[in-house]
Amino acid sequence: MAAKIATPHLMTLADLSVPQINRLLAHSHYCKQITKPWLEPQVYKPTKRTQLRMPSQSLFNKTVALLFSKRSTRTRLASETSISLLGGNALFLGKEDIQLGVNETPRDTARVIGGMTEGIFARVGDHEEIEELAKYSPVPVINALSSLWHPTQVLADLLTLHEHSHLFTKPDAKDDTPDYKNMQTSVKSRKREKPTSLPELSPLTISYVGDSANILHDMLVTYPRLGHSLRVASPSKYRAPPEVWKRVEELGCDKGIWWGEDPREAVKGADVVVTDTWISMGQEAEKAQRLRDFQGYQVTEALCREGGAKPDWKFMHCLPRKQDEVDDEVTSWFCL
Amino acid sequence: MAAKIATPHLMTLADLSVPQINRLLAHSHYCKQITKPWLEPQVYKPTKRTQLRMPSQSLFNKTVALLFSKRSTRTRLASETSISLLGGNALFLGKEDIQLGVNETPRDTARVIGGMTEGIFARVGDHEEIEELAKYSPVPVINALSSLWHPTQVLADLLTLHEHSHLFTKPDAKDDTPDYKNMQTSVKSRKREKPTSLPELSPLTISYVGDSANILHDMLVTYPRLGHSLRVASPSKYRAPPEVWKRVEELGCDKGIWWGEDPREAVKGADVVVTDTWISMGQEAEKAQRLRDFQGYQVTEALCREGGAKPDWKFMHCLPRKQDEVDDEVTSWFCL
Amino acid sequence: MAAKIATPHLMTLADLSVPQINRLLAHSHYCKQITKPWLEPQVYKPTKRTQLRMPSQSLFNKTVALLFSKRSTRTRLASETSISLLGGNALFLGKEDIQLGVNETPRDTARVIGGMTEGIFARVGDHEEIEELAKYSPVPVINALSSLWHPTQVLADLLTLHEHSHLFTKPDAKDDTPDYKNMQTSVKSRKREKPTSLPELSPLTISYVGDSANILHDMLVTYPRLGHSLRVASPSKYRAPPEVWKRVEELGCDKGIWWGEDPREAVKGADVVVTDTWISMGQEAEKAQRLRDFQGYQVTEALCREGGAKPDWKFMHCLPRKQDEVDDEVTSWFCL
Repeated sequence: MAAKIATPHLMTLADLSVPQINRLLAHSHYCKQITKPWLEPQVYKPTKRTQLRMPSQSLFNKTVALLFSKRSTRTRLASETSISLLGGNALFLGKEDIQLGVNETPRDTARVIGGMTEGIFARVGDHEEIEELAKYSPVPVINALSSLWHPTQVLADLLTLHEHSHLFTKPDAKDDTPDYKNMQTSVKSRKREKPTSLPELSPLTISYVGDSANILHDMLVTYPRLGHSLRVASPSKYRAPPEVWKRVEELGCDKGIWWGEDPREAVKGADVVVTDTWISMGQEAEKAQRLRDFQGYQVTEALCREGGAKPDWKFMHCLPRKQDEVDDEVTSWFCL
Repeated sequence: MAAKIATPHLMTLADLSVPQINRLLAHSHYCKQITKPWLEPQVYKPTKRTQLRMPSQSLFNKTVALLFSKRSTRTRLASETSISLLGGNALFLGKEDIQLGVNETPRDTARVIGGMTEGIFARVGDHEEIEELAKYSPVPVINALSSLWHPTQVLADLLTLHEHSHLFTKPDAKDDTPDYKNMQTSVKSRKREKPTSLPELSPLTISYVGDSANILHDMLVTYPRLGHSLRVASPSKYRAPPEVWKRVEELGCDKGIWWGEDPREAVKGADVVVTDTWISMGQEAEKAQRLRDFQGYQVTEALCREGGAKPDWKFMHCLPRKQDEVDDEVTSWFCL
Repeated sequence: MAAKIATPHLMTLADLSVPQINRLLAHSHYCKQITKPWLEPQVYKPTKRTQLRMPSQSLFNKTVALLFSKRSTRTRLASETSISLLGGNALFLGKEDIQLGVNETPRDTARVIGGMTEGIFARVGDHEEIEELAKYSPVPVINALSSLWHPTQVLADLLTLHEHSHLFTKPDAKDDTPDYKNMQTSVKSRKREKPTSLPELSPLTISYVGDSANILHDMLVTYPRLGHSLRVASPSKYRAPPEVWKRVEELGCDKGIWWGEDPREAVKGADVVVTDTWISMGQEAEKAQRLRDFQGYQVTEALCREGGAKPDWKFMHCLPRKQDEVDDEVTSWFCL
């Protein structure tokens, strides 16, 4: 009997090697660049030298199931539109359509959905649910957020950092004025002649202030391997669970992480400050307690100045944001 | 920096000029004519002289978000099927998927959805919600019904009137018998040799009897500009709000409108009588009061005879209809 | 006026002749065979002799409405993915989107949906609802499950039986060892050189033990016409309703059916044993009563041995299954 090739899944970025992560980023950057001119040739006015490139129709005739137990705006739109751009069919199944494990075991659900589609992109509650899906699905399962990990968000954050790498001052740069001009996207600047390769990113100091949740967990297993320093401030009672630390240590990421309770310490030397909601989907009952526990963890200009972040530090948030975790002054420059 | 071209939106037909409205109607008529033979060549049997024309794939690879806060059958089906016919991808977001302004401001919602799609077709509650979407969306926003306006319904009504213009007797016509033969669509009559241009429509007297709601509002800013007389009967307490009258006056439409409280007066000389539900979506609590206030406003054969409508007057309703506003005798000839 | 051709609908397999059923099965088998290599050429490695065949784009530019009043996993996935494979657009309308008969009569719903799509695939509660849809729809309506019939499930079961016909021992076979080797689908065995025609199926004894519900009803009007013996055990109070028996008798199927209350009698000589849930969607209130009434109807290895099923009898279930109607031992070999 022919050898069986294991179905590749993506549960967390810990599943990918550094070259795999970099190839994903480079390919995403390429796809983004050819997509806009293809969708809006009237704006980008292609010339003979800049022929339009149609996005690869690699999903032509194929269906990808979007199995979302939780509400989603960004992730759903991003996945449905990219599946469509690649020629595929996105089949959305919300919690009204399928309740994992209620009428049917996750095992049977995985085999039925996996037997009729070419991929499953799943947003679940408990991380065990997506592990069960992956265990039994004959087609790739990609984690679109679980209680433990959120790999696609950290990939998107990395792509954002690479594409704005010119904003981060290099130690030996002659002119350290941030290139504000390029922060605005004018019609003119969009007329790129041909796709450029992914801009390189110098090693950064990335700070995370807030709840130890799925986004931080994927940062912990990824950023140190890519050469960035990670500084985290989170109340000790919300420290990441053992299964996350196990992956962090296996990948040797622990050496690149500073972890403490003081937000001021965490933002020291920061190029980028990241946070997320203090009350994740499903934790609404713990709201009052959590608001008390996270007192002092709000990201503000004052906090970053006092803590010694770089003068031109940048802020990233996966949205939607609440004022609790970051104030309006910081987000007044928000670009979506 | 290159000049920024304003994103065109459609909030109400008051936003469009008369030539723009006429071009939309002519193009819709053309699209309707080529679509049926394309979808059903076995019925329409194209010959050498009548080659099939594929609908323009102008939305190929593009996604249009359908953001529907309210239930819809007709509007949703019409938009999804036309987007599909034009090669595009309709991404339906119901109120289970996104609640405007609940988790996130309409501003952020507009920027996120507009950043990942090529258009937004939105059915909202309060009209301010769609104005907010349009203000911040980088892509066109089309109003699929709001508390104040319903432009796509009045465009559809206009197309229906043009396509049935042979039913309306012209003052100088030699034979004023309505052409009942053409009211039935037989397989034979559908074998059109090539697309015909949009039939012209003589000036009509159009009467509206009932609640001053979104459909009437778009009639007020449109029909008088196209040469039609508009006669409205509505209880004085439900008179259209000031922001509607402002647009009516700006466009000089007030001269073509008769407005009163007596339905008999309103249907005088009518070619067409129009009404809509007395209880719009969201007004269920006012039901008992409204049923009292609209006593006598039911469209009936007797009312139109007594009021002096033209003998062969026609009736239009956006559906679904209730007996309250129009009786079964009138709708016994209903064509959907 | 040109003759009007009746719109073909599928309410139950009783609507189809034996040649029509066989053509449907043969075409489905062909489509299944060309689909997998088309979707996964890297696995099936086509050579010069085995060119890829693209699935017929017979639904190109067309929309099929999926009108589902009831939850569905398998039927929804199967229909959406096949519509997509054939180039079409599946427009899903769940009970949140449309409630048949609530805001609008089924007549108007049928005319509106049928006027804008090229087909309606409907899963309803009461069977009368789908009969109403079919009566007024200008496009074909296919029953995706109703209170009375479930034709697509029995078509799928028949296809499964044909594709596994090598598992059923023929009376005159030289070697009656079941061909277990072919039960496993290895990468190697999937490299079929070209589509094969539908394997023939010898006359089987098919037993049904359990509730007289929609699946059994379609078995009653189908299997005897195809040459199979049908043996049913069901409590007398749940006997199929008169309208089902009327169709059974019209088609002369009653001669091929044994009906009783004893499950042991029913499985006598069985090649295949079939059951379904005892509590169909909508019957949750009758649960306690039904569990009592169906005591002794659970399909088990012991029951089949004692009743005298063939030694290598097979089990089929439309899923999801509950332990009530079939125990874990029987389903331990389950293939989805």
